Amino acid sequence: MTVSDNQCINTIRFLAVDAVQRANSGHPGAPLGQAPMAYVLWDRFLKHNPHDVDWLDRDRFVLSVGHLSAMLYPLLYLTGYDVSLDDIKQFRQWGSKGGGHPEYKLTPGVEATTGPLGQGFAMAVGMAMAERWVAARYNRPGHEIFNHFTYVVESDGGMMEGITSEAASLAGTLRLGKLICLYDDNDISIEGHTDISFAENVGQRFEAYGWQVISIDGMDVTAVDGAIRMAQADDSRPSLIICKTIIAYGSPNKEGSASTHGTPLGEEEICLTKEKLGWTYKETFTVPPEVLAHCRQAVERGKKQQQEWEQKLDEYRKAYPLEAEQLGKDLRKELPQGWDSELDALFQASDKPIATRKASGRVINKIAQKVPFFMGGSADLAPSVNARLEDCGDFGFQDYAGRNIHFGVREHAMGAIANGIALHGGAIPFTSTFFTFSDYMRPSVRMAALMGLQVAFIFSHDSIAVGEDGPTHEPVEQLMGFRAVPNLITIRPADATETVEAWKMAMENRESPTVLVFSRQDLPVLDRITLASASGLRRGGYVVWEAAKKPDVIIIGTGSELHLALEAGRLLQDKGIMARVVSLPSWELFDVQPADYRNEVLPPDMRARISVEAGTATGWERYVGLDGIAIGVSRFGATGKGEVVYEKYGFSAQRVVNEVLRLLHRE
Amino acid sequence: MTVSDNQCINTIRFLAVDAVQRANSGHPGAPLGQAPMAYVLWDRFLKHNPHDVDWLDRDRFVLSVGHLSAMLYPLLYLTGYDVSLDDIKQFRQWGSKGGGHPEYKLTPGVEATTGPLGQGFAMAVGMAMAERWVAARYNRPGHEIFNHFTYVVESDGGMMEGITSEAASLAGTLRLGKLICLYDDNDISIEGHTDISFAENVGQRFEAYGWQVISIDGMDVTAVDGAIRMAQADDSRPSLIICKTIIAYGSPNKEGSASTHGTPLGEEEICLTKEKLGWTYKETFTVPPEVLAHCRQAVERGKKQQQEWEQKLDEYRKAYPLEAEQLGKDLRKELPQGWDSELDALFQASDKPIATRKASGRVINKIAQKVPFFMGGSADLAPSVNARLEDCGDFGFQDYAGRNIHFGVREHAMGAIANGIALHGGAIPFTSTFFTFSDYMRPSVRMAALMGLQVAFIFSHDSIAVGEDGPTHEPVEQLMGFRAVPNLITIRPADATETVEAWKMAMENRESPTVLVFSRQDLPVLDRITLASASGLRRGGYVVWEAAKKPDVIIIGTGSELHLALEAGRLLQDKGIMARVVSLPSWELFDVQPADYRNEVLPPDMRARISVEAGTATGWERYVGLDGIAIGVSRFGATGKGEVVYEKYGFSAQRVVNEVLRLLHRE
Repeated sequence: MTVSDNQCINTIRFLAVDAVQRANSGHPGAPLGQAPMAYVLWDRFLKHNPHDVDWLDRDRFVLSVGHLSAMLYPLLYLTGYDVSLDDIKQFRQWGSKGGGHPEYKLTPGVEATTGPLGQGFAMAVGMAMAERWVAARYNRPGHEIFNHFTYVVESDGGMMEGITSEAASLAGTLRLGKLICLYDDNDISIEGHTDISFAENVGQRFEAYGWQVISIDGMDVTAVDGAIRMAQADDSRPSLIICKTIIAYGSPNKEGSASTHGTPLGEEEICLTKEKLGWTYKETFTVPPEVLAHCRQAVERGKKQQQEWEQKLDEYRKAYPLEAEQLGKDLRKELPQGWDSELDALFQASDKPIATRKASGRVINKIAQKVPFFMGGSADLAPSVNARLEDCGDFGFQDYAGRNIHFGVREHAMGAIANGIALHGGAIPFTSTFFTFSDYMRPSVRMAALMGLQVAFIFSHDSIAVGEDGPTHEPVEQLMGFRAVPNLITIRPADATETVEAWKMAMENRESPTVLVFSRQDLPVLDRITLASASGLRRGGYVVWEAAKKPDVIIIGTGSELHLALEAGRLLQDKGIMARVVSLPSWELFDVQPADYRNEVLPPDMRARISVEAGTATGWERYVGLDGIAIGVSRFGATGKGEVVYEKYGFSAQRVVNEVLRLLHRE
Repeated sequence: MTVSDNQCINTIRFLAVDAVQRANSGHPGAPLGQAPMAYVLWDRFLKHNPHDVDWLDRDRFVLSVGHLSAMLYPLLYLTGYDVSLDDIKQFRQWGSKGGGHPEYKLTPGVEATTGPLGQGFAMAVGMAMAERWVAARYNRPGHEIFNHFTYVVESDGGMMEGITSEAASLAGTLRLGKLICLYDDNDISIEGHTDISFAENVGQRFEAYGWQVISIDGMDVTAVDGAIRMAQADDSRPSLIICKTIIAYGSPNKEGSASTHGTPLGEEEICLTKEKLGWTYKETFTVPPEVLAHCRQAVERGKKQQQEWEQKLDEYRKAYPLEAEQLGKDLRKELPQGWDSELDALFQASDKPIATRKASGRVINKIAQKVPFFMGGSADLAPSVNARLEDCGDFGFQDYAGRNIHFGVREHAMGAIANGIALHGGAIPFTSTFFTFSDYMRPSVRMAALMGLQVAFIFSHDSIAVGEDGPTHEPVEQLMGFRAVPNLITIRPADATETVEAWKMAMENRESPTVLVFSRQDLPVLDRITLASASGLRRGGYVVWEAAKKPDVIIIGTGSELHLALEAGRLLQDKGIMARVVSLPSWELFDVQPADYRNEVLPPDMRARISVEAGTATGWERYVGLDGIAIGVSRFGATGKGEVVYEKYGFSAQRVVNEVLRLLHRE
């Protein structure tokens, strides 16, 4: 049974168009133009095994233009993934595998959740970096166990997003030759022709980044084939294939129109389009058997490719048993026995005060010594954040095995690239910058949380105590902002000992990203002989100190403010007022504790409660209630020496004492 | 008294270096290299009047590389702004005009707060757009009252930021010939040579955007002079002047070193540098009288320039009295008598249900008819957000008077550009996109709040009820995230009538930006005869409905969930349980009401309280306390029809009823 490329392409087109029409929601125009390039890639080039979505050396395919999900599900179905025709029919319905935008974990074969524009592109850069990294670490002469491409499909919209520029510039700098972007250049976005907002020369721009740029008719199968070959052949540059396509191709009345971007074509127009493109089937969702048979060859092909690779891996295992064993551990993210054994001894109460960012720097270096698959970097602030792994090399084209990534001043791409590394597998990545710039990467942190990726997001300079840099560099709302994000653990340790525990949690927390928030200023190392153990952090919150008698008041602190809470507690005791001091470095960890524990720390009938945190107070009512007092920051920061700003904004033990007296009506 | 350029340049250099050294904080390296270009621009080109910082047609100067504030204050002081030598000596100290980063309003002559990289560049694009806009609206043949340049200084770091790429691409598309960027290309960032992360060809990239690109030795006075002339001469393209400079120029031991980026040079090295550059003064903070005299000529020059311009304005006033009068109103943002008179009649309870995004679309069109200085646009989602001003033209090089801006898919730059427009004066700008993408522009919204700018940030598709687009497009944490930002008013109206009131507030709120959050789905228009007036929104929260007898419970709702609260209130009444229903569309507006009012709406002794909002519940304890219940969303959204997702996530009147029963222990 022979089948034409065109027949296959039309099958993809009309499965997409029918799915959108049936859902009465989605994006029908672009699949009509993009189906040829997607088909050629999947049919002739993509190295994958639809029956083993976890095969290590598969090519990665990321549909950065996530709103074209209607085109992806047909590709997955036709090539034999665990996606049925019924899933396509159930496109955009509750419980279906055909999610509105492609979702990692929901749909087999989806390598990354996409939709927010540009995220997919940057994650693909991360995947291509991870590939080079594991290849550099594990490949040996004659044993190339890692050697795959990363393909990403991008659109005009994605090309306008800053994150794409950031990631593309870094990819060029890093010479990621195995990264190939197919750019669907159809000149149409929602508001009309891209001329109105996007007159730039994208090809020239990518050449400036150091990419190979290839321009073709994206609907010409032969041209696409040739371009991908050319892209594969260039080892030292990532490649951009600019595919000119026509939105709503074949639609007699809507071809080239922006209205087809996000609105179903309509039954009648679909019929006309099918007729025009020579699609003779009356039934919707038709899959000609010869098309299915042809595309399903991907299963056999993939199985064979994987078998050959498995054989290579076997040979590798024999030649390099230690490496192979370690590789397995990397992939399972298996922390070695005793990986954290030296951490507890790092800091003593007798040490000089130390900023938690500096403590973190010491901790991650200890971790890096024990955990070879721990790697990451900074958006040009490694020295300030203390985020450099000493003696671990720099990731770059001279040394892809380096474990320090210089992301450049590109916070947004940094976040998404870390997500891409985590998705690829083989590493636990971290990122770092100042806490105030966490805003720049918030969309990527959200994606990490949504996908449930293990990424450690390090942020230092965590409050108005930053001082001299002034309000632009002083976070206020960021802590509360992250606490609002689902499936994200935010931890703000109070001292070096809590920093150790925070890092243990971040390394063990596989199901979600962890945000680690560190001080710029030095903080005393708390004496864990007189105070409760810092391991209480693992439960999110714990009683760190208590006056001799039954408490009159609970003072809750986080980070640097825990020290004020402790000092206030002692001052109050001198006045005969008994305080309990609670350290609450992570709301999320605390809130999932059993009620018994939470009620033990914060007894429901003890309502005289005060919180103190150098950030937005709004929201702290969660713990202090309507009868308590939340000491916080209700305006932006200011310039001055850190300790001056801190004091001017009302952060002192005496202030806490005064507020307690007010609360207890004893002022 | 003659003075050499070099003497002036050295004065700027060493005021900066001495200031950093004295503060023991700041960035000394770059001013040593950048002082020549800054001096040439300020001495020979900048059109400004240091004694009238509000002169309408002054050139705008934005130091996007805000961490070089130490270089800006000397320029302001030397040219005669209200900045003293003592302010420079008090650099980075509490209460000084010499803020850590340049701060709008704090320091006379600072056009924009900068520091977070790239923001200044994008704001400058906004200023240049505003200049073209007011010029197109008000200039008349022979009467060119608007004709100024916008200069922006950018650095390697800023060039790496995505927001810069977004804004530069749009500036090229819009052919902003009066925008000139001096790019300090010193090849050094904090982590070292930019090679490690930034190998791109910036000039080529900007050519791709449609800019004129000029490369020079940035420390050669003649070259800088020639380049600025060339930039000014090109009317149809923005210009990028790539100024090669040497960081820490003149420092014998540290020239070219990354360590000088953000660390004081040290007393000894400063002495050596001064010696090397021929600076013979032993005293720190020396300003040779001839230098001061030379630079202070800016005052006379500026006064004369402004006088000539005032004369032109007088002639304009005579020739075009109506236009001149309207211009005055634009600049004062004077809303015309009755500007909102037709708004109240827009919606009736008898109307069909209407999404608040659609109601907003109708409201802004009414406003636009009455308020000519109201303008804005969308990041390629105008049709979905309903953010198009009909019959108001498109802003572009064919028509700079157009009032609809096509920002392209560039949320981050959109926010900063709107800030730049607001800073320039002459318009109240708005932006728009989906609420979930508010994350992309969060850093710019923060800047608007920090500067206290009147910008309306419109966000639609405000909850999991978005449905078919799935979790990437369903906001959960964004509402709470914005509530945490200081000096920002967030409003989520419940229906069309509250939408009207929300827009009134946004138009009247001059001291801070307003975030407006609208539903995708249709919502009934509330019957304001049986319910309290929507004008209650102006106080942030109000009792919208109350059962016949003294309430047993308070149900608080916002946005679409107010309708559930109302329905639940009625269902409960049928069961003999009396509810008060409170609409709380804006926490910020409510929280600044007098305590009496707040206690009237939420009596302190009424603790049976329930909130219902389709977003993060964490934080609602602010109003429901430890004894209440907050119905919200604690995980990410999902794909499905909007009403299905909504119901699956527990949003129904019956759920509210059940929770009330549970709260009152009557289940």
